Amino acid sequence: MKTALTVIIVEQDRDRARMIVDALRAFGEHDIHVIGSGTGLARRVAEMRPDLVLIDAGDPSRDALEELTLAAGPLERPVAMFVDRADRHLTRAAIEAGVSAYVVDGLRAERIRPILDAAIARFHVFQRMRSELAATRAALEERKLIDRAKGILMRARGISEEEAYALLRRAAMDQGKRLADLAQALVTASELLK
Amino acid sequence: MKTALTVIIVEQDRDRARMIVDALRAFGEHDIHVIGSGTGLARRVAEMRPDLVLIDAGDPSRDALEELTLAAGPLERPVAMFVDRADRHLTRAAIEAGVSAYVVDGLRAERIRPILDAAIARFHVFQRMRSELAATRAALEERKLIDRAKGILMRARGISEEEAYALLRRAAMDQGKRLADLAQALVTASELLK
Repeated sequence: MKTALTVIIVEQDRDRARMIVDALRAFGEHDIHVIGSGTGLARRVAEMRPDLVLIDAGDPSRDALEELTLAAGPLERPVAMFVDRADRHLTRAAIEAGVSAYVVDGLRAERIRPILDAAIARFHVFQRMRSELAATRAALEERKLIDRAKGILMRARGISEEEAYALLRRAAMDQGKRLADLAQALVTASELLK
Repeated sequence: MKTALTVIIVEQDRDRARMIVDALRAFGEHDIHVIGSGTGLARRVAEMRPDLVLIDAGDPSRDALEELTLAAGPLERPVAMFVDRADRHLTRAAIEAGVSAYVVDGLRAERIRPILDAAIARFHVFQRMRSELAATRAALEERKLIDRAKGILMRARGISEEEAYALLRRAAMDQGKRLADLAQALVTASELLK
């Protein structure tokens, strides 16, 4: 945990809120905001863009858990969730939604730091994989698009693949566009003109 | 946790081993194997191909943690690791190596089940992302290969892209091979013949 994180804590119980805040303060000058319930969490998250959200969810229903998770935005930042009672289905739902730490009956002062460290590490591992997947998917999509655009040019002008590619590249450079964007424009135009 | 998992437990302490075994047995007829230390873990894992590995690592050094993690094979199955003491760097190293649950000072009978449920859920989420990434990467690589093979044929025979692609497909079908494998063979052969 680096110092000076912006943290939102959702905690109904005053004593537990103080315990969590003290545990966090012991490890850095964090900018900590405690809210008493999940209502308004989405708005606070949107306003403050916290580095971390810690939710003491108590004994949530499936709907409540889903709402809390959604509001916390677990794909954008580490979210650590504490619940009182084990429920295999809720555990799975929370983890599949991207919650970085899901802890049953484990909210104790001395465990908060290691749990948040683990949540942060896990979030980064996931984040890295997600961006790698997104980049690889984009590269594949772009390649398909450029192939389609080349094919359209080859047919329309009766030119070779190399010539079509050179034409696309030149047009992209002239217009200061990315090759894939130009290819997309060409594919779209050709569909409209059909 | 489904019933009848094959589980390997690494636990030096007899009482704790019994506690863990009892906690697991309470939830199903698992095939449980306790070993006293990490030595030999890799061999046991290779022999038994467990569904789950639970390691009580105590207060491991960085090297010991690395060896245990490697031996447990956290990319092949859920691995839950319990340590006594918080250390941010060890936490991060374990999680980056793929450990599904990394729990500091939390080995208590009633928490074993929820921790293993979370570890299993997390493993599956990761597994899914990893296979998606692998599949997308493979698709991209195959597309590149097929493009190169097409280019080679087009130059060598003075044919169009469509003709080159048709030729490749026909050859793959005739030989009962995947298009990408045939393209790979062609690219390799053309490099050798250069």
